[in-house]
Amino acid sequence: VRRPRFFAPQAESSGSTIELPEDEASQLTRVLRLQSGDDVHVFNGRGGEWTATVAQASKQSVRVTLRDPVVTISEPRLAITLAIAVLKGDKMDDIVRDAVMLGVSAIQPILTARTEIAAANLARSGRVARWQRIAVSSAKQCGRAVVPNVRSAQPIEGVFALRAPLVMLVEPGTATRAVSLADLPPIERPTVLVGPEGGWTVDELAQGAAAGAMLVTLGGQTIRADAVPLVAITALRVHWNDF
Amino acid sequence: VRRPRFFAPQAESSGSTIELPEDEASQLTRVLRLQSGDDVHVFNGRGGEWTATVAQASKQSVRVTLRDPVVTISEPRLAITLAIAVLKGDKMDDIVRDAVMLGVSAIQPILTARTEIAAANLARSGRVARWQRIAVSSAKQCGRAVVPNVRSAQPIEGVFALRAPLVMLVEPGTATRAVSLADLPPIERPTVLVGPEGGWTVDELAQGAAAGAMLVTLGGQTIRADAVPLVAITALRVHWNDF
Repeated sequence: VRRPRFFAPQAESSGSTIELPEDEASQLTRVLRLQSGDDVHVFNGRGGEWTATVAQASKQSVRVTLRDPVVTISEPRLAITLAIAVLKGDKMDDIVRDAVMLGVSAIQPILTARTEIAAANLARSGRVARWQRIAVSSAKQCGRAVVPNVRSAQPIEGVFALRAPLVMLVEPGTATRAVSLADLPPIERPTVLVGPEGGWTVDELAQGAAAGAMLVTLGGQTIRADAVPLVAITALRVHWNDF
Repeated sequence: VRRPRFFAPQAESSGSTIELPEDEASQLTRVLRLQSGDDVHVFNGRGGEWTATVAQASKQSVRVTLRDPVVTISEPRLAITLAIAVLKGDKMDDIVRDAVMLGVSAIQPILTARTEIAAANLARSGRVARWQRIAVSSAKQCGRAVVPNVRSAQPIEGVFALRAPLVMLVEPGTATRAVSLADLPPIERPTVLVGPEGGWTVDELAQGAAAGAMLVTLGGQTIRADAVPLVAITALRVHWNDF
């Protein structure tokens, strides 16, 4: 039986007693109905995880005492940042959940010419905070001790300006300079750009190429936009011998 | 602009005039509002595709005349059969759609000890016919000229009895004999077995091993059941240099 896992960003060292964040405390007491003395796991989202004992559990607060460090599942060797054009509706929820499960290091929502949501609406909607909560929840479920950071949304130009190593996923037949996955060289700490439902504009492809992005196609078939991140991260990690 | 594609299993040769199946005819006249003289593409689901002209379009029937053969997107080199434990609710709809998009040759729904739907209910529900329609629809959208066959559901023992080359996906830590993807040798025409939400039983793992299945884990993280097929097919195709 796997012990229930709780996320506590302030967890640092064995022997210390810390308070769980409100969401986690609520899950411990109300959903799982655990009590003082029960054994749990606590992880800090930065790779640290401990066995722990519930020291105090009330409606107001839950405190746990960290015991022994736990050997966590190993993180991918390659730190991949997923830079994903914000998709419509709640599709991003699944994408964030799956990207965390597949080991990305960070998620960068981006706004592109064909993104169908305005930056102001996105900021007002609290969706980035929601995605960060989903990242925590996904890490808890899949066993990762690292919670990837979900960054604030920014225009794609902002990503190009960072001069990070870029891999830009393109649909078959849309960019003459695209290479197939088999021809993609190793790339350190890549940022992987995935476009919106309507694809990249010619201008965005040109900007990407100018920023040094490797343009890559995945097979000959058109893959639906909300499946591309899962397929792309899996394909890149296997291609780079990191799965 | 991509021409609309229609599926007509009886399409065989240039110059012939054939009738579209009812679903396709309805889409042509009612959804896309095409008329006699309009240009379309027609594919037969077995790799043949033609430019075609609408010869007659009425509410009762649509006939198209096949013109020139079209160079279709290439099929994967490896013929992969996805043998998937039937998941709850409508999760199978997305799995079938995505598996077709990722190039599988056939889909074999299976019933396992932890499958939460009875064989009789499945047969009555018409779900296999529904999945076959989804396979057609997915092939239309992703550009494939081949429609994978969705077979009738059968108990997992029936798949083991076929003595086909098997790859059985297992969760990290559940089977001592499991290899990681990097250690998986090439396999001709593999059947890839993906388990239900609750996983395989010890008995099913033993039966699989006895049937010669390669037991494979995908990374260290737990991947949610409905994402496993997409991740597994992508990972296997990249691992076998077929993406």
